[in-house]
Amino acid sequence: AMDGAPPPSSPAGLSAYVAVSQLLGLTLLATTGAWLGRYRGGVAWHSPLQFNAHPLCMVLGMVFLQGDALLVYRVFRHEAKRSTKALHALLHGLALLIALVGIIAVFESHRTKGIPDMYSLHSWCGMATFVLYLLQWLLGCGFFLFPGASFSLRGSYKPQHIFFGITLFILSITSCLLGITEMLLFKISDSYSHFVPEGILANTLGVLLVAFGLVVGYVLTREEWKRPPLAEELALSMDFKTLTEGESPGG
Amino acid sequence: AMDGAPPPSSPAGLSAYVAVSQLLGLTLLATTGAWLGRYRGGVAWHSPLQFNAHPLCMVLGMVFLQGDALLVYRVFRHEAKRSTKALHALLHGLALLIALVGIIAVFESHRTKGIPDMYSLHSWCGMATFVLYLLQWLLGCGFFLFPGASFSLRGSYKPQHIFFGITLFILSITSCLLGITEMLLFKISDSYSHFVPEGILANTLGVLLVAFGLVVGYVLTREEWKRPPLAEELALSMDFKTLTEGESPGG
Repeated sequence: AMDGAPPPSSPAGLSAYVAVSQLLGLTLLATTGAWLGRYRGGVAWHSPLQFNAHPLCMVLGMVFLQGDALLVYRVFRHEAKRSTKALHALLHGLALLIALVGIIAVFESHRTKGIPDMYSLHSWCGMATFVLYLLQWLLGCGFFLFPGASFSLRGSYKPQHIFFGITLFILSITSCLLGITEMLLFKISDSYSHFVPEGILANTLGVLLVAFGLVVGYVLTREEWKRPPLAEELALSMDFKTLTEGESPGG
Repeated sequence: AMDGAPPPSSPAGLSAYVAVSQLLGLTLLATTGAWLGRYRGGVAWHSPLQFNAHPLCMVLGMVFLQGDALLVYRVFRHEAKRSTKALHALLHGLALLIALVGIIAVFESHRTKGIPDMYSLHSWCGMATFVLYLLQWLLGCGFFLFPGASFSLRGSYKPQHIFFGITLFILSITSCLLGITEMLLFKISDSYSHFVPEGILANTLGVLLVAFGLVVGYVLTREEWKRPPLAEELALSMDFKTLTEGESPGG
């Protein structure tokens, strides 16, 4: 719209915070891999190591990819809204798929070993988070991606979508911390209190998970870093406002 | 300012959500009491039951009172800001004191039983949360309660205070969930997977903690429910704006 204007740039600080979040995310995955590889025998599917696919998939899907899906509107702030939305939905969809693999891993591993399912607080929180995350994704696609929903319906659902989106991200991280605590008390309950390296490493993974959530949460909630509407989006919503105000005759 | 105007009222819905939060908070305390009383021998100070003071104090201080301290600006939305601030600081101060008692309980109980301190993820998260909560309280008093800080300093610290305030509330609840998981795996590791009543009750306490956090978080972040500035506060900030704009000559 404004020819000759300087190319759009990101606010100072935002890029640094996003870079830190990605560094933390990769460290998260490396730490999970180090824990499972160094102390838990590694990861494999049709084997007694199948359980280990669970923490790896959940950290990758429900934390790293979910977090990055939340960040796309901040990172691609000057792209067309439609493509950013598609990427947002795609990353969440990928997160859901990987989390599903992680959930199958733990159920199959329980069946093989004769361990009951769904008795622990970790399993209650984790399963509730996964089911609500799937529901949120379906609702998000229905409201925002497919053309059926009206402008005003989208507008009134959007704050709920954002609130529950951030809530589910926090619950995902919380469920991971509960899983770490459970796994340590199952595997190294005798040596955990003696500050053995595996305990310190897994605790550190917990701290990194919190740090990732903190940085992503800060980027998402900082008012000045929210995605500004593009010129054509503003024009569109102004047209819409005129239209609806014209439509409703009563106060 | 506007004589003859109707008395100020709260937005529809807010009162209902606040009522639900208080009902959840009381249920939280009752459930903690029921767990400790029915299955863990009750609570006492100079006794082997001293440990049980820990969960009770942490749920009361770091969750219920901290949550209510966050809600005061929504509940007392038409009171003078100064009194609401004082109540906010007072409730947080009380929460800190009760949490301190709960922390002393676990350290003394560990010393009596010869259990090492600060090795678990629960202890790392919980202690970090408590220390940062104390720091946040001191900074909050320094910036907002004592008259030293300037208007513009307060304005630039306020968003940080709010972000970290909500973060610490979430971390407090997360630490409680980790504590519940730890305690269950210490005390009933053999029967937990058989869905014994104590396990179900403690898991339910975890779910109630999440529900309390969710309702409080929803009330806090809903844009329309934020405390509106009083007429005299608006006038004051307008005076201030005129003043500073007059003061700074350069762009």
